[in-house]
Formats: sequence, structure tokens, C-alpha cells
Amino acid sequence: MATRRDTRGVTDGLGERLAATRTLTLDLVAPLSDADATIQPFPDASPAKWHLAHTTWFFETFVLRNRGHAPFDERFAYLFNSYYEAEGDRHARPKRGMLSRPSLDEIRAWRAHVDEALDSVLPGLDERGLKVVELGIQHEQQHQELLLTDILATFAENPLEPAYFCYCEAPKETRQSSAGEGGLLPPAQGRGGNGGGEWLQHAGGTVMIGAEETGFAFDCERPCHRALLHPHALASLPVSNAEWEQFIVDGGYATPTLWLSEGWAWVRENAIEAPLYWRPDGTHFTLAGRVARDPAAPVAHISYYEADAFARWAGARLPREEEWENAAKGAGASEGQQLDGRDWVVPTEKTGMFGSVWEWTASAFLPYPGFVTEAGAIGEYNGKFMRGQFVLKGASCATPRGHSRASYRNFFPPSARWQFTGVRLARDA
Amino acid sequence: MATRRDTRGVTDGLGERLAATRTLTLDLVAPLSDADATIQPFPDASPAKWHLAHTTWFFETFVLRNRGHAPFDERFAYLFNSYYEAEGDRHARPKRGMLSRPSLDEIRAWRAHVDEALDSVLPGLDERGLKVVELGIQHEQQHQELLLTDILATFAENPLEPAYFCYCEAPKETRQSSAGEGGLLPPAQGRGGNGGGEWLQHAGGTVMIGAEETGFAFDCERPCHRALLHPHALASLPVSNAEWEQFIVDGGYATPTLWLSEGWAWVRENAIEAPLYWRPDGTHFTLAGRVARDPAAPVAHISYYEADAFARWAGARLPREEEWENAAKGAGASEGQQLDGRDWVVPTEKTGMFGSVWEWTASAFLPYPGFVTEAGAIGEYNGKFMRGQFVLKGASCATPRGHSRASYRNFFPPSARWQFTGVRLARDA
Amino acid sequence: MATRRDTRGVTDGLGERLAATRTLTLDLVAPLSDADATIQPFPDASPAKWHLAHTTWFFETFVLRNRGHAPFDERFAYLFNSYYEAEGDRHARPKRGMLSRPSLDEIRAWRAHVDEALDSVLPGLDERGLKVVELGIQHEQQHQELLLTDILATFAENPLEPAYFCYCEAPKETRQSSAGEGGLLPPAQGRGGNGGGEWLQHAGGTVMIGAEETGFAFDCERPCHRALLHPHALASLPVSNAEWEQFIVDGGYATPTLWLSEGWAWVRENAIEAPLYWRPDGTHFTLAGRVARDPAAPVAHISYYEADAFARWAGARLPREEEWENAAKGAGASEGQQLDGRDWVVPTEKTGMFGSVWEWTASAFLPYPGFVTEAGAIGEYNGKFMRGQFVLKGASCATPRGHSRASYRNFFPPSARWQFTGVRLARDA
Amino acid sequence: MATRRDTRGVTDGLGERLAATRTLTLDLVAPLSDADATIQPFPDASPAKWHLAHTTWFFETFVLRNRGHAPFDERFAYLFNSYYEAEGDRHARPKRGMLSRPSLDEIRAWRAHVDEALDSVLPGLDERGLKVVELGIQHEQQHQELLLTDILATFAENPLEPAYFCYCEAPKETRQSSAGEGGLLPPAQGRGGNGGGEWLQHAGGTVMIGAEETGFAFDCERPCHRALLHPHALASLPVSNAEWEQFIVDGGYATPTLWLSEGWAWVRENAIEAPLYWRPDGTHFTLAGRVARDPAAPVAHISYYEADAFARWAGARLPREEEWENAAKGAGASEGQQLDGRDWVVPTEKTGMFGSVWEWTASAFLPYPGFVTEAGAIGEYNGKFMRGQFVLKGASCATPRGHSRASYRNFFPPSARWQFTGVRLARDA
Repeated sequence: MATRRDTRGVTDGLGERLAATRTLTLDLVAPLSDADATIQPFPDASPAKWHLAHTTWFFETFVLRNRGHAPFDERFAYLFNSYYEAEGDRHARPKRGMLSRPSLDEIRAWRAHVDEALDSVLPGLDERGLKVVELGIQHEQQHQELLLTDILATFAENPLEPAYFCYCEAPKETRQSSAGEGGLLPPAQGRGGNGGGEWLQHAGGTVMIGAEETGFAFDCERPCHRALLHPHALASLPVSNAEWEQFIVDGGYATPTLWLSEGWAWVRENAIEAPLYWRPDGTHFTLAGRVARDPAAPVAHISYYEADAFARWAGARLPREEEWENAAKGAGASEGQQLDGRDWVVPTEKTGMFGSVWEWTASAFLPYPGFVTEAGAIGEYNGKFMRGQFVLKGASCATPRGHSRASYRNFFPPSARWQFTGVRLARDA
Repeated sequence: MATRRDTRGVTDGLGERLAATRTLTLDLVAPLSDADATIQPFPDASPAKWHLAHTTWFFETFVLRNRGHAPFDERFAYLFNSYYEAEGDRHARPKRGMLSRPSLDEIRAWRAHVDEALDSVLPGLDERGLKVVELGIQHEQQHQELLLTDILATFAENPLEPAYFCYCEAPKETRQSSAGEGGLLPPAQGRGGNGGGEWLQHAGGTVMIGAEETGFAFDCERPCHRALLHPHALASLPVSNAEWEQFIVDGGYATPTLWLSEGWAWVRENAIEAPLYWRPDGTHFTLAGRVARDPAAPVAHISYYEADAFARWAGARLPREEEWENAAKGAGASEGQQLDGRDWVVPTEKTGMFGSVWEWTASAFLPYPGFVTEAGAIGEYNGKFMRGQFVLKGASCATPRGHSRASYRNFFPPSARWQFTGVRLARDA
Repeated sequence: MATRRDTRGVTDGLGERLAATRTLTLDLVAPLSDADATIQPFPDASPAKWHLAHTTWFFETFVLRNRGHAPFDERFAYLFNSYYEAEGDRHARPKRGMLSRPSLDEIRAWRAHVDEALDSVLPGLDERGLKVVELGIQHEQQHQELLLTDILATFAENPLEPAYFCYCEAPKETRQSSAGEGGLLPPAQGRGGNGGGEWLQHAGGTVMIGAEETGFAFDCERPCHRALLHPHALASLPVSNAEWEQFIVDGGYATPTLWLSEGWAWVRENAIEAPLYWRPDGTHFTLAGRVARDPAAPVAHISYYEADAFARWAGARLPREEEWENAAKGAGASEGQQLDGRDWVVPTEKTGMFGSVWEWTASAFLPYPGFVTEAGAIGEYNGKFMRGQFVLKGASCATPRGHSRASYRNFFPPSARWQFTGVRLARDA
Repeated sequence: MATRRDTRGVTDGLGERLAATRTLTLDLVAPLSDADATIQPFPDASPAKWHLAHTTWFFETFVLRNRGHAPFDERFAYLFNSYYEAEGDRHARPKRGMLSRPSLDEIRAWRAHVDEALDSVLPGLDERGLKVVELGIQHEQQHQELLLTDILATFAENPLEPAYFCYCEAPKETRQSSAGEGGLLPPAQGRGGNGGGEWLQHAGGTVMIGAEETGFAFDCERPCHRALLHPHALASLPVSNAEWEQFIVDGGYATPTLWLSEGWAWVRENAIEAPLYWRPDGTHFTLAGRVARDPAAPVAHISYYEADAFARWAGARLPREEEWENAAKGAGASEGQQLDGRDWVVPTEKTGMFGSVWEWTASAFLPYPGFVTEAGAIGEYNGKFMRGQFVLKGASCATPRGHSRASYRNFFPPSARWQFTGVRLARDA
């Protein structure tokens, strides 16, 4: 696969990246049985098999369909459309775990068929077509992360506590951190010890926020626009497991005044006492099975409610998304670790903003000034979810390499915990 | 395997029957993939894999445990105990579909291990031990039927409409009917045409009901006791698909006065308009996939509410369980089709009471006069479900050969439809 | 009001009884404010005001409507029809607590208007009309009891614990017991002390069960029919508060093997630890407010599940409805306390079967052999509730005088506790 | 009542305003019966009686308690605390409709008692005490509006469609508009006709947002801070009923691509087809009963989801809260209608931003930069609700005179419709 152009949203090497992305997805499901790949652990998560199929449906529908390629199986559109109303009726989301057929191998065959077809149409694509391919790659990378979090959620439901991999076997390509010694999970140890962080001050002022016009970005990251920062400080490190244990010991989960009203109701209805996957014996459940928690590692699998309550307990607050993004851009720029403007491989020494856990911000996921959606089904990508969610910045140990950038706006509802979500403190200065 | 004795509940050939039963269960899951066998279509149904494992747990726990055999895997008791409180904590029923591990092959290995151990202990069992083996066989036969109904429910959730088998491939051993021409599903055509039935009169009087002391029966079938019949008549045939279509055309599902108050609420909340698995185009979904409905075949997959409303619409009522049982015993006796007092292979020409569909009765599932439960966990078999269920008599096309008898009391909640459930009319005479 | 005839279901003095019944209902709500009478404590209970209105709607609809009387307010039929499908659309049951209008006084005015009209039509009624008036009286008496239980449920929701009356003020007419010393609530002390009961043996045999053709009875009590009793014994007294406390102390609510499977789920989901209205300090909430429990008084406000578990704990079982009814008829007959064949004023010394608590039986509420419903809306009285309920026999301290008889079949779902429900033990003999 | 000081949050005439506020609340419930005042129409709304009691509890708890005044009734704190965790346990919110006692008159007696005590302590209050009194007044004004919206919701549940008042009787003091010809409801006609509005342009830039340090404001309105506006335009009039009808006719409620994903789910689950209280015959239900809709009046009783979908349909968007506030301040300033910096009596000709309907903004209700809560229970006022809600600006026809200002931040969940909520369009310029 080779591309001819490099315009907005389409970079050199598109074919190579497409091939690498498609291959990585297959690698990620390699340790799974057909049965593992069929289970849907809860309605908001999807079976591994479904991720494999949906990312293929995306290319077949938006790239191949209008270029003379008949669908591999006409019934798959109904099964593997996620939420695109413009693409017609679809299988109910909570029923995704009912699909033992098609089998994992049948879906692999479909993928091979689509990959071959993509190879044949790629050379002839116009700019718009290339942009959709780029979107397909980015979309598939998002599902690679979900695939890992959903496998974790699936195995966590099994009293046998299966392990997805041993530490030594962590697929290297999915690691955000280049350090290598960490492995995919638990979140890489990015700090020297408890409480070793410091406050990084910012005097405030007007800054540019969002993705620039060149290079790939999701629609919700644009337009790039001016934003006003107030004087503030950000912690140089995310909150660690050891710090979270202090919060628990201090009665954090039993003190209503630390919590949002809705968060307190959530704590009580669900009898929440610790981050998801924590066990009372000092271990937590990970993709490597149940292992001892590393006190120095960033806490993961916390909800927005928990992040917010912790910040209140600590006398601090959550960062606003523009504060976070501005710090990330500055840090990167000043230390030369920005590879091509989009790809953060090595977290900076001081902030480690990419590669361990997504960090909850205080910002609701809402449109930027001047935000417009694309026409057609593609336009249903982000805009229609702009209600009830909070922005997370950074990237996690499960984010594919090359899929993070300072302008990235991840988002989840405030009760979501099955992602690798953590927290960094901020305060007014 | 060979047995030395023949006392109450333990017949000659126990070892052979045990081996045949264990083999049939494996045969029934042979067409399934690991993924097929993992899905739980709804909380009251179980994955095929779970049936395979639970029936093995039963033997391992109640036969092998106290005879020097360590469990194959100590964690399995937690996973595969169904509802025996005396056996300790267990995996939550609605979570049975979360178990991709152990795999289908691992469960097969466990079965082989247990079968071998059973072989070794069988010759030394005392009467009590033999009775538990007999119970284990009967228990496994019950799960064979559930296995088929749960596979049907699983495949019915899949928009691809997979078929479990072709007609020609129906496993012969599971067929209740010896006619051979019918196949497992849809329910065998047991009648010459629509409305060909007649009313069989009974003058009433005192009769014996329930299972005699010799031969196997579940606890709820005993003690055998006197019951008073009032004059009545029973239809010689169960209600057919064609008759059910008349009920629909006549507005049966839209006429509240035909329904129990609770049934009417159920109809409206669930938008019920036809038997489960019926499609508007004259087909229904079966284990052989979607096929045309046979107008003359007994209607199947109806709830008690529907059976009751149909009877009211027809100016009739449902049979009481003692009326049904008395007729079945009489019919069998008079026509010499009772093989060994327990095994009804060939339905009589006139009534066809075994082998097509379970038939809802008007009787709540309650204890017989003098009913007592066994001590210990085994005593949790039936008694604790004696509330909120109705008795069904007969057997269905999915009932294993040799597992039916006139005193059998099957039971399900009034809204259950995923079993092969039909209806036979009765009236006061 | 005076009546001219005395045929089946219509006795002498109908007019007087009608007037007395209508007056008693008004007396029962006299202690209530408009606000008290408006609250619906939960969906299965109704506001006092609604009972007042519904019983009036019954007479207006089924007696006056076809005899030249226009409805008082055409909108009331929609508001105060309870469940008669044949009478058209109606206000949703769970919304009955939304009706501050019409006010209590407006409903009283409606009652006065209807009472006057009834006075004028009564002399001209034919037999069918008179039977409907009789049904209306009996129907209103049922609502008198519900009115008291629903007021109790309403006040129990109020942390201020209001009292409906002081002991000395208990409305005499509603007392089942003529002894006078008891008062309406808590259930009259009908026994000399704890455990003072004895087993009353019955040898079994065929008996007549149900209401005879003469005299009023609800449709579900007929036809009178033969039933077969097996040898059994009944306790001479219902279970007392003191005995129930033993059950609690012995871990009754924490022992799963004592419970039906469904009952155990109910206990856990609702954290049930004692009868409804019991407080941990030895008191219970009654219509007289919170008072000390009398150890010797029959336990009240228990569910079928609790009654059944208690019986299992005690090594006994619940009575079958035919056992209970036969004992009640026999006891009455032999001791001359049967006034007119229907009205049990004085409980017998030995059994005290009427007047304290309704007694759960082991019998599901199902139709008698030969049961038929009336045509039209009146036919919706009982038959359509014959599913999911258990029969209760006897009467309670809240049952109006003259409204009990041995053939009476009260019924409630197994989880219901807000009625005055208790338990008497039985056992096989 | 007279006050001695005028510092931040405490203005001259505090005593007079306190008396007037307390009196107005009583006037508002004057048309209600005890039963009317007892009903809770749904869990998020409260009985009128409860509003009356809770606002009294507020003064008794936060002003009188520490100044030598024993509570009127010690049990009331449990009943009438709303959500202040620091004030201890409280009656469950969904159970507020269970309180027929205390009666409306008993609550009036309590109010009189507290008012007298307030009179006696007011002269001696220090600055902090006076600020709490001011907060109590503002708090009670909020409940005056809720009282009206909750009465409307209560009467809307009654098929008799009671009217709270006739037009001519609308309590004058509650009217935001001084025009007088409008009446409280439906929302005052503030425009000459359909589509008569125009776009008011704003070039963007940095502006001051929030309440200044002097004068009363709720904590969430502070601190006053700089905000960056992007170029935009605001409609001069809110959307009218006639415009909303066009949206309906054009299939607005049936076009998924117009809606947020969550909004579309809400539309379908609740079968939403029009604003709350609209009837298909061109009428809507109001506090004056069911009346014809005025095509030119602002649409009311719409959810955020509906406002957002309408804006998308119209090719526009919702205003951000800072855009709205800046316009309101500018409009007022330029036309001299700002009475004392806080009290907007007369809507401007051009924008009519106060007095008809609250206007949904695109802004999530989140803390301003530098936001801090007060210590203690008072600090639970707004901050803990900063999640899941959207900001509404302006005021409605039910907002008490003197209770609106440009910096006011009202907030409700996106599905709330029982307030007088409307929408004004905005667009990027």
C-alpha cells in the first residue's frame, strides 16, 4: 500500500500505517479463544469479536461500498454498525454478546477479504477517500484500546481470574511507553516514589487550544481557537496508588461532603469502596491476572466522581482541559519530544502526561467555538455524544503508539471505570 | 459399568444407562462451537457449557466426594453449583454467560475424568449411593432437555438465524416419538389434521395419583395418594398451530376479558402477539433454523397465560394435573403401551400425550399430601420451588427417551415460553 | 330502605344493611383529614378517599345507571373504576394518590346523592337488581377492611407515627369480636398464653366445601363441591408474637433452607428481619400508633413466605384451604355459634378462627370444579385474579362484622404483608 | 423588622423584604387545600406543604438555632431538611408525598412562630447573621418558583384538570413582568408575532462575567472573572409556540440526526412528541387550567434535549452562558432598565431576557475559576450539584419579582421539563 499525497489529514505512509493497524488488531486478539471473544461483560463494553468486525465494517461501508465492492455478507451491516443512525437499523447494543456466529475465524476471513480490497482501491483514492481511510485507522486504534479494556472487564467477571498475557509477553506495539520494562499493565511506573511530584505554575493568559488545520485530528478537536487561562498550577505527576490508599484510610469513601451529590448516590448504590479491580488484599486484577499493586504507579480505574472527591479531599481540584492541553504542548515543545506534532512517545520526566492513565478533567465534553460536524453518517462521530460526559486528556498504557496528541479529547460518563482512568491534581494559583 | 442390585429407584442396567446418558449429553453439544456453548441467552436459561459442567458437578459432589475422590478442580464447585444453598456460595445465575473459561474442551476433560471415577466407584455403591446415581441420571436427562431449549433460545437471539441441525440429522436418541418421520423439531405432527380431535369423557371418582413406591420418581411425585376427580372431558389432541392462528385472527391477543389480570399486563408490557419464535410470514424459528409452520402440528412455545386465555376463548378450561395423569395412565394401560411402568415410548393414537409438547395444567405446583423432602442438599431438589409455578404434564420432542412417565410433574412460571410448551383443552362434563 | 323478597343472595333487611354499611364507611374515614385521605402509600394500596369513591361508583354504575339516573359527575367513572376492563379506560392504579380533587367533602356529597337515589330505586328492584345491591354491600365491606389497612400503611410511612384512634375509641361496628375488650388493633388477644394451643385431629375423608346455593357468597366460593381430606391435624390457635420471636432468635430469617427459593430471594432483597410494622424495641406500629407488642396475641402482618418458613421451622406445614374450612364449619356447628349460616360473630374457644388475623393457607387461589363467572363487568370480580395468589381463610380484627363465613376465600400475593395476616400450623396425621 | 447595616450581601430594608417574602409564600398556597399541598407529583418535585416547611426549617436551623431558640418541633428537622448532609439524616426525598401530617395549618402555625422569633433576633444579628437571613430570603424565593411549578405538575396529574387561578386572579407579586396584562401563565406574550426577531451581533472579546463582590449573589455566581467571547449572534426573541409547531410539523421529533444520542434515547423511551403540557388540540395545561396556546408566546416546558435539537434543526446553536450574560448586562445598561444592579423588572423591547421563560444555554453547570464553597452545611448550596446539569439564564413568569439578575445561574438536568423553560437561538458569526 502506498499513498500519493500528503494533505490535511492524510500523511505519507498511509498504506503502511493502515497495514500495521490492521495487523495489530489481529495480534491483540491472538491470545483469545472464540468464546473469550464472544462475551460482552456489560452493555457499554463490546465483545472482542465485535471490535474486530466493527472496524472492518467501517472500512467496507465508508471506503469500499461506493467503489464497486459488494459487501462480504449483506447481513453484517445490521450486526456491526455501532450507532450510525444514517446507516439504518442495527443490532441492539446490549445484545452484542449473543453473537457466537459469525465465529472468530469467519470474522478474520472477512477482515482478510476487506484488507485485500482496500489494497486494491487505495492507489485510486481521491483526497476525500484518503481522509476516510485515515479516519478508519484512527477509529480502529480507538477500538484497539477498547478491545483491551473490554477483555479486562470480561476476564474480571470470571472467578477463575484468567490472565490475558504474562508481563514478558506484553505486545510491544501497544505500549505507549518506550521504556520497555513496564509492560502493558498495570500502568507503567512513571515516578520515583510516593509524593515525589511538584506544582507546575502557570500565570494564565490567552492561549491557542485545539488541533491545527494540518494533520489528523477528530472533528471535536477543532477548530483551533483562543482560550483564556486563569492563573493555576498542575501537579507534575498523577495521583499514585499509595496516595489513593491514604484517601481510603482517611474515610474518603465514607465522607459525603467530599462528593458531588450524584457521586455520593453512586457510591452508596454501588457500595463503592476502592478503585475498580482493587482487591482487599493489596492486589488488583489486571490483564496479567491478579497481581500486587505498585504503590508508586498511577492509580487507575477510577470514575470522575472518585477523581473529583479525591481532589476535594486533597484541597485541590481537577484540571480544566485547556490547562492540561496547554501544559502538554509546552512540555513537549520545550523538551523536544514532539516527534511529528501528533505522536508522543516518551512522557516527559516532569509530567508524564501520556502513556499511563487517561486523566479526568473538570471539563464537560462540549463543542468548541465554531465546531461543525461532517455531513452524512461520518458526522455522527463525536458531536452527538456531547452531553453527560467529561473530557479525559493524555493517553493510557493501552493506547496504541502514535494515537495520542495534546489536543486529543477522550470522553466518558462520570461513572465509567473500566478504562485506564486516573487523575492529576490542579489548583488555582 | 454394571450394577449388582435392583431395589427401589435402582433398576438393572444402571451402569449402562449412566454411560448412555453421559454420552448423549456430549452428542448433544457436538454441533456447538466453544462460543455457542458459552452464551447465556437470558438469566433463566444457561449456557450449554454450563449444563455440561453442572451435571458433572452433581456426580462429583454427591457421589464421588465422600468416596475418596478429590475434586478435579476445587474452583468448579463455586462455578457450577446451581442453587443448592447447603453446598455453599456460588456464582450468580445471571453471570453464567461470563465464563469463556473453562473452555468446552476443558469441561469435556473434566467429564471424562469424572466418568472414569464413577466407573470405579459404581460396583461398590450401597443402595443409597445407587439411588443418588439414579437421581444423577434423571437430573442429567432434565438438563439434556434444557440444553436443547437453551440452544434454541441462544440461536434465536442471533439475527443470522443459525440452525442447530438439519432435519435429517436430528439425534435419534433424544426423540420421544419412535415414529421417526418427525425429527426433533418442530414438534412432531401427531394428528391427522385441524380440529380432528374429540372429547374423551370421564365420569369422575376417586383415583390414585402420583408415583408408586417402586421405580424411580422425583420426590415431588410422591407419595402416591387418592385424589377426587369431578366429571370432565379432555381433548384427544393438543391445540394445533392452525387453531392458534384462528385465536389470533379472532383478536385473542387484543381482548382483555379473555385473560387473567396478570396475563393481560404481561401481554401489554411485552407486546405479545403470537407464540414465541413465530414470525409474521408463516414461519417459526426452530432448532433447524427458520422453517414454515405446520398447521397440524401442536402449537408450542406458549405461556400459561396464553394457554389459559386460549381455553377461555374456546369455551373450555385447562386440565387439572390429576385429570391429565389419570387419563395418561388409563390410556397407556388399556392399549398396552406401558413398557415398564415408567417409559412411554409411543404416544397412543387417541391422545398423543407424550412426545410433542409439555402441556400446561390448571394446577399450581404444590406439595402432595404427605410430601417430604430428603435431608441435606439433595432435599433442595423440588420442594423449594413450590410457589409461583404451574404443573406441566407429558413430555416434549426434546425430552430424552425414557425420561417420561404419567406421574411426572414438570413446572415453570406462567410467563415461561422457551420450553416446548403447548396446551390441551378440558371441560366440565 | 326495605326489601320485599328473600331469594338466593338477597336476605331480609337488605335496605337496612345497605344503610348501615354506607354509614360505617363514612364513620371509618371520620378521623381523617382530606390530606390523610388523599395519600396512596404504595401502588397496591389506595387512598381512603378512593375507597369512599370507588364503592359509590360501584352502586352508581351497576345499580343506578340503567335505571334512569344520570351520573353525578361524568368524569368520575374514569377516576374510580378499579379494574373492570368492560367499563372502559380508567385512571392508572399507581396514580391514585394524585387526586387532591375531588375533595373528601365533594366525595361525601356524591355519596349522599347516590344514597338518596338508591333509596328511591330500591323498592322497585327485581331479583337481579337486588343481587347487585347485595354484591355492592359485600364489596363495600371488603373495602372497609382495605380502608383500614391502607390507612395503617399510610401512617406507617410518616415518621411522626400518627394514631388513627385510641384504644377506647375503636369503632365498635368494625370489630369482629363481640367481646369488646379487644379493640380493633392490635389483633385481639384470643388465647390464654404462649403455646397454649393443641392439635385438633381429623381422620380425613370426603367433605363438602364451598358456599351453598342459598345466601350470599362471592362467585369464587361456588359451586359447593366434594373434596377429599387426608388425615391431618390443625393447631387450635394461630401462632403468637412470642412464638414468632423464638423463630427470630433461632435465626429463622437467616437460614435459607427454611425458605422457598423465591421467599429467600425476597428476604434478601428487602432485608426482611421481622413482621411488617415490628420495631426492634419490642413495639409495633398499629392504628393506635406505636405500642408494645402483646406476646400472647396472634402474630400479624406476615407474608406467605414467612408463614411457610415458620411452619417448616416448626416441623409443620400450612393448612390446605379445605382442611381449614371443614374445621371452621365443624367447630361452629358443634358449638352452636353459627348465627345464620354466614355470620361468625364469636370465635370458638378452641380455634378462634375468625376475628384476629387472616390465616395463610397452602392453597393457591384457583377455580373450584365447575366455577363459572357472571357475564359482563360483574364477572371480572374474582376469576381474573386466579394466578399468583394464595388463599387466606377466616377474618381479621379489621373485617366488618357480618362479613365472614367459613367458605370465604380471601387472597393475596405471597409477599403481601400490609393486611392483618397470620398463620395457623397444620401437619399430616 | 429593621436592619442596621448594609454590607456585602445585606441591603437596606432586609427586615421588610424578609416579611414580604414570608407573606408571599403564604399567599401562594392560599388557593390550595391541605390535600393539594400534600401531593408530590414525582420524586424531583415536592409538595407545596413541604416548600412551606422547608423554607421555615432553613431559618430555624441556620438563624435561630444558635441564638437561644429551641426548635418548634424537634422531629421537623428530619422531615424538612432537603439535602444538607452536614445536618444529619433526613426523610427520603421520594417519600415527601407521604406527609399528611403535619397539616397545612400546623405548618402555618410553625411559620408564624418562626417569623416572630426572627423578628426578635433580627436587630441583634451581626454581619454573618444578616448574610444568612439574606440567603434565607433568596432561598425562599427560589422555592416560591418551585412551589408554582410543582403545583402545576400536581394538577397536571389530575384528569379533572383543576385550575390554580383564573387569569384575573394571578398573584401580582409573583409576576416578573410589570405589564400586568399577561398574568402568571402562560408565559407572557413578549413579542409582536412569529419570527419577528432579529440577530444581535457581537464581535467577541474579553468580558467580565459573574456577580460582583457587592450585593447578594449565590456562591456559584462568583468570583467575577474574565471570559473570552468568540464572535457570535443572539436572537432578539426566544423561540415561539408557532415556531415550535413548525419544528413538529417538519418531523423534528422523528429525525434522529437532529438529536444528541442521549436525547434521542430519551425521546423514544418516553414517546415525546411535543413540549410538556401541550395537548393535541392546540391547548396546553397551565396554572389557569387548560387554555388555547398563544402562537406568539415563547415556547415553555421543553427539555435541554429539545432545545438543542430545535437549534440544530434551525441551523443554529444554543447560547453559551457568558454570551447570554454579556448581552443581558449590555442591554440593561444601554436602556436604563437596571434598577439596582440586581432587579430586572421590565424586559427590554429587544430581547425580553427576563420574565417569560428560563433559557437553556449550551453551558454545563460547572464552577467558575476560583470558585469556593462556604464552610459547613451552607456550603452545600450549589457546588455539589455541579455535574449533569445545564445552566439556564434569565427568569420566568414564575420567578418572584426582585429575584433575577444577569449573573444568575439556574440549573437543571437536561431532561427536566416541569420548569418554565424555553430557548433562544445563537450562532457563530
